[in-house]
Amino acid sequence: MDLPTRRGFVNITPEVERVVRASGVREGLVLVNAMHITASVFINDDEDGLHDDCERWLERLAPHAPTDQYRHNETGEDNADAHLKRQVMGREVVVALTKGELDFGPWEQIFYGEFDGRRKKRVLVKIIGE
Amino acid sequence: MDLPTRRGFVNITPEVERVVRASGVREGLVLVNAMHITASVFINDDEDGLHDDCERWLERLAPHAPTDQYRHNETGEDNADAHLKRQVMGREVVVALTKGELDFGPWEQIFYGEFDGRRKKRVLVKIIGE
Amino acid sequence: MDLPTRRGFVNITPEVERVVRASGVREGLVLVNAMHITASVFINDDEDGLHDDCERWLERLAPHAPTDQYRHNETGEDNADAHLKRQVMGREVVVALTKGELDFGPWEQIFYGEFDGRRKKRVLVKIIGE
Repeated sequence: MDLPTRRGFVNITPEVERVVRASGVREGLVLVNAMHITASVFINDDEDGLHDDCERWLERLAPHAPTDQYRHNETGEDNADAHLKRQVMGREVVVALTKGELDFGPWEQIFYGEFDGRRKKRVLVKIIGE
Repeated sequence: MDLPTRRGFVNITPEVERVVRASGVREGLVLVNAMHITASVFINDDEDGLHDDCERWLERLAPHAPTDQYRHNETGEDNADAHLKRQVMGREVVVALTKGELDFGPWEQIFYGEFDGRRKKRVLVKIIGE
Repeated sequence: MDLPTRRGFVNITPEVERVVRASGVREGLVLVNAMHITASVFINDDEDGLHDDCERWLERLAPHAPTDQYRHNETGEDNADAHLKRQVMGREVVVALTKGELDFGPWEQIFYGEFDGRRKKRVLVKIIGE
């Protein structure tokens, strides 16, 4: 992932499905996690308005500015808020794999949530089962 | 699950235990997740006062009203707050399965958390191991 | 874990790595969870300033005092806030195990988060794979 903005949500369900199918595993669990501590992987609705609501809500819970309200930012970073936002949204999801497919409810989609973008980051997909 | 109210918590530990025992699996992991994005599965205390505290706390963090504060509600929904509350409470739990039982600490109980009820929803239980 | 203070974060990555190596499992998943409902296991940065920011942030989201704002505390406890803080930080992490090692991004470290300490608590590590 390499988002051009500080924050954003990207639907990564198709990529995860591709990895799942390539694995050949039919029954098991899939772990999908952000490998960076200012990013998140979560499951919610693929609706732009909601993503906008969510971003404004996170900004209210853990504001980016003023950056000097956070001790972490004394290290030269300005991303303390991103570490906290990721805590609300979570690092990972674990999804059931049934008959070779992600075992999802009607609206479940997997998102990568970026809170300190403009640099390259990775998502890990690990599949276990048979 | 089909709660008659908009919000509520239901202890689903006995149902999960039943599925675990029926599986015959002795050592492994159990994934329990809400299949709906305005509901949660989480582990906490089975104490009514705490559930009431939790509901009031979530309402303070992500208020239901005024509903027009959320762009998601312009789609005709009034449940944007439910999507955010579920994010705080989490979608899923993963529990260790040891000697055929949920490997729990003294007070751990699994709950279904509903934030936009009065309709039928499902919980998924997936067990891997041997 | 037995923290001398009410709240604190402890890096438990070395202990988890020790358990992983002793297991001999090369490919799989590792579940690490708090067995107590006023404690958390989470993954974030090992930076003191951030931990301090995080503690102040959680205190703002779910204040300890006044303790009589919570119905749970009518049971004789004073830890309702700890149950809520743990909900924000999460109960568990699931980590991929690849070639016998925790499959981590550059800054990922596993922490035990205590919100109602001064008593003995346990963390569970469960490994599946081969």
